[in-house]
Amino acid sequence: MEELLKFAPRPTGAGEMFQLLRDGQPRTRADLATATGQARSTIAARIDLLMSAGLIAPAGEATSTGGRPPATFAFNPRAKVVLAVDLGATHARIALTDLASQVLAETDAPLSIAEGPDTVLGWVVENGDKLLAAAERDEGELAGVGVGLPGPVEHSTGHPIMPPIMPAWDDVDVPGILRRHFDAPVLVDNDVNIMALGEHRAAWRTIDNLLFVKVATGIGSGIIADGALRRGAQGAAGDLGHVAVAGAEGAPCRCGNVGCLEAIASGQAVAERLAAEGLDAHRSADVVRLVRSGDLAASAAVRQAGRDIGTVLAACVSMLNPSVIVIGGILAEAGEHLIAGIREVVYRRSLPLATQHLRIVTSQTRGEAGVLGASAMAVDHVLSPASIDALI
Amino acid sequence: MEELLKFAPRPTGAGEMFQLLRDGQPRTRADLATATGQARSTIAARIDLLMSAGLIAPAGEATSTGGRPPATFAFNPRAKVVLAVDLGATHARIALTDLASQVLAETDAPLSIAEGPDTVLGWVVENGDKLLAAAERDEGELAGVGVGLPGPVEHSTGHPIMPPIMPAWDDVDVPGILRRHFDAPVLVDNDVNIMALGEHRAAWRTIDNLLFVKVATGIGSGIIADGALRRGAQGAAGDLGHVAVAGAEGAPCRCGNVGCLEAIASGQAVAERLAAEGLDAHRSADVVRLVRSGDLAASAAVRQAGRDIGTVLAACVSMLNPSVIVIGGILAEAGEHLIAGIREVVYRRSLPLATQHLRIVTSQTRGEAGVLGASAMAVDHVLSPASIDALI
Repeated sequence: MEELLKFAPRPTGAGEMFQLLRDGQPRTRADLATATGQARSTIAARIDLLMSAGLIAPAGEATSTGGRPPATFAFNPRAKVVLAVDLGATHARIALTDLASQVLAETDAPLSIAEGPDTVLGWVVENGDKLLAAAERDEGELAGVGVGLPGPVEHSTGHPIMPPIMPAWDDVDVPGILRRHFDAPVLVDNDVNIMALGEHRAAWRTIDNLLFVKVATGIGSGIIADGALRRGAQGAAGDLGHVAVAGAEGAPCRCGNVGCLEAIASGQAVAERLAAEGLDAHRSADVVRLVRSGDLAASAAVRQAGRDIGTVLAACVSMLNPSVIVIGGILAEAGEHLIAGIREVVYRRSLPLATQHLRIVTSQTRGEAGVLGASAMAVDHVLSPASIDALI
Repeated sequence: MEELLKFAPRPTGAGEMFQLLRDGQPRTRADLATATGQARSTIAARIDLLMSAGLIAPAGEATSTGGRPPATFAFNPRAKVVLAVDLGATHARIALTDLASQVLAETDAPLSIAEGPDTVLGWVVENGDKLLAAAERDEGELAGVGVGLPGPVEHSTGHPIMPPIMPAWDDVDVPGILRRHFDAPVLVDNDVNIMALGEHRAAWRTIDNLLFVKVATGIGSGIIADGALRRGAQGAAGDLGHVAVAGAEGAPCRCGNVGCLEAIASGQAVAERLAAEGLDAHRSADVVRLVRSGDLAASAAVRQAGRDIGTVLAACVSMLNPSVIVIGGILAEAGEHLIAGIREVVYRRSLPLATQHLRIVTSQTRGEAGVLGASAMAVDHVLSPASIDALI
């Protein structure tokens, strides 16, 4: 600790003070002095540093009780940009956003993650450059890159760890590869974690305890507890798909175990069950199409999938006591059947204290949760006190 | 926000600076200036404030490279005391500790929580006074009171909420009642949460993700994620006992549902099963006695309880990805049978990424986890930056 204290860079305090301004509200020097307990001269010096870096800008004058009205300053989210990348199993999306996660330019394409890091990260680099050009921002303005991947990721290193559907990515240095092209920090997490973060920031900012559940080809979840994403010890938290479901002991799962939720209630599992009944269903999208066309067998199968997911979510409600569960992923788009099945079991199976204020809702961000979360993850890093103190 | 900024008390920064000193290491004024980025004059003023309050004390001189060696200062945990109260279903324990949660005096007694708030909190007041007297500390030195109760507690208010085994306590203002006697903040939480906190601080301080499981008359858990206790939206998180277990659909639970873990694997459930087989078992302690005496039926029943608990813990491992699961409560004292059953199922049933570094161990604090956690909860409040700024 002594060593650390001696060699740590001396913080200016500007990065810490800047956190007060992240809400976008204009403040005077006096406001900031009151809020931080610092001397006016210290505040003035910090404002100069943040102004030079472009992170704050003058925001007009406050009303005055006499004399010259004091100047105000506010966060300038256009100062820098970040690239937000959402890589799914078969689809890729990339957005350029400002530091308030407002999308400035965006593109997407069908792209199989199984094609491997060279092809997929090559696509990211190529389209990242295109978005920067389209938005007329140069590379020097790029402050960070956030990436979501469809598999477990060791968050501290950004390396995928034994990812089942993307074996060629095991322990690949994703941040290192992207940094060869982009001169900015690269943050990587799994896709459901960034979707949870995106949904939370975009739609549920005032809710501290939220569970985001993605029901698509696979099933996964992201946990917001006490206002922040919780990743667990190896970044594997939220792995709902491989929890065993009562009464499903016989169903073999791709993970090698039997009775996993994913093996009986994912879009893929429902499609296979419907195909066995003679319906034209091969994947999640077919299930959604059949339900929308009014097929009763498909609707019943999706409702039963909801009940099975509800059985596992009831356990999650007891353990995590969230106030909101958001259901996303393509199967959530098949009308009310999925969420009705989930609600049916969760409200029956959980204790009153945990469900009395619980809401179970569908995603409000749809396809955008991933890029919004990837942007938020990068922005949080870029605007942290330590990053700002290093920047200015 | 503008309003808040104007009327919030102006922090001196001393409370924030004090956090650096909580590790107990002596530091010079120069160390503190480097670590905080504040001017030497600001640091000197804060040290004076903290010295006057007795929270820090001179700690000798640092080695010097020439000239007069600089003075060092360190946290003085004896400055104040807290009362730490662990109220179980049938037993009460109270300790007086310093601000480092070192026990200065302690007492316990058989006491049924069902006797109600008047009797039980009367016992707390009477014995709190006795401990203060025994340790020769006066009431003015009491900085806080931490209380654990055997039921759900709304942490923000300290009120028990619909607690199943203590109906007379529903929505009782526990902090208000204790504050009529003790002039200090009172923090209340459920007993398993404070046990998780106590075990974490005493034995696993460097581990950020830990699950503490109590297996006694009932079954419950406390969750440490990213280094802090997570209570969920209503303080109900960690409620392991009422998660449904696969294959136990028929077992009625006191909560009104069927198939709950507590209804098949708690000390009470195991005792009842053994009693039905003609053994002399009425409660958890009898089960422990039978196992220790070498009874094979009792050992087998405890091992099976371990497997059932393991089934639910496997789901918790997938969801929370802890690095350590600590098994406490009286049934954990029945030798290796319980933990062997738990390990058997968790390691079979969870994904390799989540179990490769997972340790499943028995409690190292035994009966002390509750008071240590109650003390830590009170101390964290007392030594928070805002509390210190208000105090000095």
